[in-house]
Amino acid sequence: MFNPDKRQAYNLEHGDALRLPAGTTSYILNPDDNQNLRVVKLAIPINNPGNFYDFYPSSTKDQQSYFNGFSRNTLEATFNTRYEEIQRIILGNEDGQEDEEQSRGQEQSHQDEGVIVRVSKEQIQELRKHAQSSSGKGKPSESGPFNLRSDEPIYSNKFGNFYEITPDRNPQAQDLDISLTFIEINEGGLLLPHYNSKAIFVVVVDEGEGNYELVGIRDQERQQDEQEQEEVRRYNAKLSEGDIFVIPAGHPISINASSNLRLLGFGINADENQRNFLAGSEDNVIRQLDKEVKQLTFPGSVEDVERLIKNQQQSYFANAQPQQQQQREKEGRRGRRGLIFSI
Amino acid sequence: MFNPDKRQAYNLEHGDALRLPAGTTSYILNPDDNQNLRVVKLAIPINNPGNFYDFYPSSTKDQQSYFNGFSRNTLEATFNTRYEEIQRIILGNEDGQEDEEQSRGQEQSHQDEGVIVRVSKEQIQELRKHAQSSSGKGKPSESGPFNLRSDEPIYSNKFGNFYEITPDRNPQAQDLDISLTFIEINEGGLLLPHYNSKAIFVVVVDEGEGNYELVGIRDQERQQDEQEQEEVRRYNAKLSEGDIFVIPAGHPISINASSNLRLLGFGINADENQRNFLAGSEDNVIRQLDKEVKQLTFPGSVEDVERLIKNQQQSYFANAQPQQQQQREKEGRRGRRGLIFSI
Amino acid sequence: MFNPDKRQAYNLEHGDALRLPAGTTSYILNPDDNQNLRVVKLAIPINNPGNFYDFYPSSTKDQQSYFNGFSRNTLEATFNTRYEEIQRIILGNEDGQEDEEQSRGQEQSHQDEGVIVRVSKEQIQELRKHAQSSSGKGKPSESGPFNLRSDEPIYSNKFGNFYEITPDRNPQAQDLDISLTFIEINEGGLLLPHYNSKAIFVVVVDEGEGNYELVGIRDQERQQDEQEQEEVRRYNAKLSEGDIFVIPAGHPISINASSNLRLLGFGINADENQRNFLAGSEDNVIRQLDKEVKQLTFPGSVEDVERLIKNQQQSYFANAQPQQQQQREKEGRRGRRGLIFSI
Repeated sequence: MFNPDKRQAYNLEHGDALRLPAGTTSYILNPDDNQNLRVVKLAIPINNPGNFYDFYPSSTKDQQSYFNGFSRNTLEATFNTRYEEIQRIILGNEDGQEDEEQSRGQEQSHQDEGVIVRVSKEQIQELRKHAQSSSGKGKPSESGPFNLRSDEPIYSNKFGNFYEITPDRNPQAQDLDISLTFIEINEGGLLLPHYNSKAIFVVVVDEGEGNYELVGIRDQERQQDEQEQEEVRRYNAKLSEGDIFVIPAGHPISINASSNLRLLGFGINADENQRNFLAGSEDNVIRQLDKEVKQLTFPGSVEDVERLIKNQQQSYFANAQPQQQQQREKEGRRGRRGLIFSI
Repeated sequence: MFNPDKRQAYNLEHGDALRLPAGTTSYILNPDDNQNLRVVKLAIPINNPGNFYDFYPSSTKDQQSYFNGFSRNTLEATFNTRYEEIQRIILGNEDGQEDEEQSRGQEQSHQDEGVIVRVSKEQIQELRKHAQSSSGKGKPSESGPFNLRSDEPIYSNKFGNFYEITPDRNPQAQDLDISLTFIEINEGGLLLPHYNSKAIFVVVVDEGEGNYELVGIRDQERQQDEQEQEEVRRYNAKLSEGDIFVIPAGHPISINASSNLRLLGFGINADENQRNFLAGSEDNVIRQLDKEVKQLTFPGSVEDVERLIKNQQQSYFANAQPQQQQQREKEGRRGRRGLIFSI
Repeated sequence: MFNPDKRQAYNLEHGDALRLPAGTTSYILNPDDNQNLRVVKLAIPINNPGNFYDFYPSSTKDQQSYFNGFSRNTLEATFNTRYEEIQRIILGNEDGQEDEEQSRGQEQSHQDEGVIVRVSKEQIQELRKHAQSSSGKGKPSESGPFNLRSDEPIYSNKFGNFYEITPDRNPQAQDLDISLTFIEINEGGLLLPHYNSKAIFVVVVDEGEGNYELVGIRDQERQQDEQEQEEVRRYNAKLSEGDIFVIPAGHPISINASSNLRLLGFGINADENQRNFLAGSEDNVIRQLDKEVKQLTFPGSVEDVERLIKNQQQSYFANAQPQQQQQREKEGRRGRRGLIFSI
């Protein structure tokens, strides 16, 4: 990766994040023969929201070089050389693109491969010579890669780990007003219901399978009866590798893992975001309500409500199927006891 | 009012303003038996401009608890308890919401009251125990309520008072880039024509009656005759309690009071806004024009223009019907004189 | 030019830029009898993107005074005078605008001239008395005019000069997050292909003629064949005095001059923008690629690519027709030699 001011190359490892300023010319190299490289990109368009393009200096079967966009005259003046030379060395097509109509549907197949090409062991070695590694633990730097797990997880227990790089802790995250999360939910674990106060999260499933439940408000046509109750609506879906979903700010969500689940999240509008949990032994919105408010709010008595809340002794992550497990354990114990008696 | 980090409760008085960060769980309590409480809210949506929802932890006849948005399994895991318990204590409905289709149109009437409930004297007392009051006069604080009239009015005379909290004077207003105004126009008073250089104001009539005139440009279809004059257009309306109107930046406006009028305004994009008056003895756009410019601009002679401008000896607020009053006074004096003579 | 706080007047010269805060009442005076004054304005709307109006204190045949937007009663109260006086001195029309319908299509021709009026020598002298000049070279000031050519050009050779005021070098440009460029391309010169990393430029042709080529991506309907090549597209146009064009961020562009060409550009979203050149002996994206990357990227050999790149010894600006010129020179030399031999 480099930018015109100073070329920079980095060795990236699993969990590393890198900010590429708009307009940077960059390449990514997978030095490993046997391991696939997966990169998740959050693109922030400049000209039009929701619309952006990649520009390439050279042509392959997948895309044309931006040099193809200039006229023969301009290219000759630009490189101070005859057009045929430029064509042979840079454009790599016989006929060039003198006329826009001509170029359409034309074959430019000098480069048989597409935008991803095979690189020899020697070339890899040469290219990696000057590469720097991510800064690791310690003070976050103003540029260069940083690892999502460089700090301790903000939530952690036997059911999962929640890593987060927030704008107030990383100058690069601050510039973009984003936060980066890496969430590990172990098989059978549940990320407890919570909502983000102001950040909108775009989440990618990196590995594993699970399920999420997201709560919204039914955006119903206001009908004759204006007094109708405002109904909540559950959006839920299975999750598997490569899935992407969005968590709007303020909407409660829970996620459970049917196999070890790893999620990567980009939080937009993240500065001063708070994650508010609806249950769990710490940081729990309901627990913090005044006694009198609990009484006025819920149908159960204050004592009932407080007892119910204390039942969940985990925070942030919990067992996704405690009832079934207790059931099984009970049955197991009974079974064993039965067995003992039978002895 | 509280947020998960630290619960906070405040005593609010007439004219107090409070900033609630997005995602805050809060309640408002009216401790007075005989006095109505009116709250004006400026909501700043996060996910979609112009679109936002309230989420409630519990269900009433007006709205559903967000817990109703989660599945039976998730709720059991969340509270580590059997579903029937959660239903009885938190959800307050017999059948729960196992299936989205089922829940539609279903009655959940454990809480007979809606989102506003009656609170006993003892509960009020308990809830108010730890409430802090607004800081009053002095240095504005980083959080907590502040009173719109804590500083001296920026404009004041016998016809009215204009209080304003601007971003440069209050850190909370600065964070949101808004300003807050409280305007009192006494019966028969006129807030002189003026425009805001860059702030857009949303104004609510808190009390009283009056009238406003707002000047815009007729957005006419450009017709055959391109040379047509650009015409101004007057938007005017009667004002009474609870009315809301918007003053776009740059558009001249005047407001008069037919009874004592109190207005509450939120200024959006308020940083470095200037209020430019078109008349009045101070801060008057016309008065500040160079002599030569006045001559070139207006049909009257410079002397006429300057004499005309000096006629209004009030600033910011003036008498809304000076002619009629003079008329009446004149008639009155004539009458009295007549009376004297008759003596 | 002035604003209500403190009236300010400035002498402006060719290349001066001035920031007028929203809501400023201002006039522009051309003191020269024989020279035309051209002003290029970048308007940043506040109420609605892409929509703004001019408001005038007085009426002419081109536009109505904003005072016409107020009712008779309000104007009488505002100026504390009878309506007829206001009409004579300020509004300048017989009937005023008591009723919106009435005013439509009505003649208000007291001021026979439009928004531009003739000013006498004496008036000019009087108006210029207190005008300040732009600060010239030196530290850029917080307000007041500054000259686009007050600093050295950032790029300069015999083919052209490129002046730029960037946000990091000027506090006024920083407030608006814009940059200002003044580009001189001499006849026969070429501004080499380059792209802006994040700024969008709006460019006005101040003088001269030329041509630009802008490279985009063909936004084709994705058809049956998903594997289709992403095609670049050339947008090109002749340029002459008064033309305006937009350069989106990231899109490569080149500009050549068929006569001495002067361009004025406003860069939007300019903070930390980088101008990345695709050719030239310095600051060249291609040149900075690693040897191995060049080899993997282009159809020519590394040696070919590096030789090709070195062929252009100019930076930023170059000869627009070097081949033809060399051709001509070659022919000229041959001719001369022939001539010599003939002697």
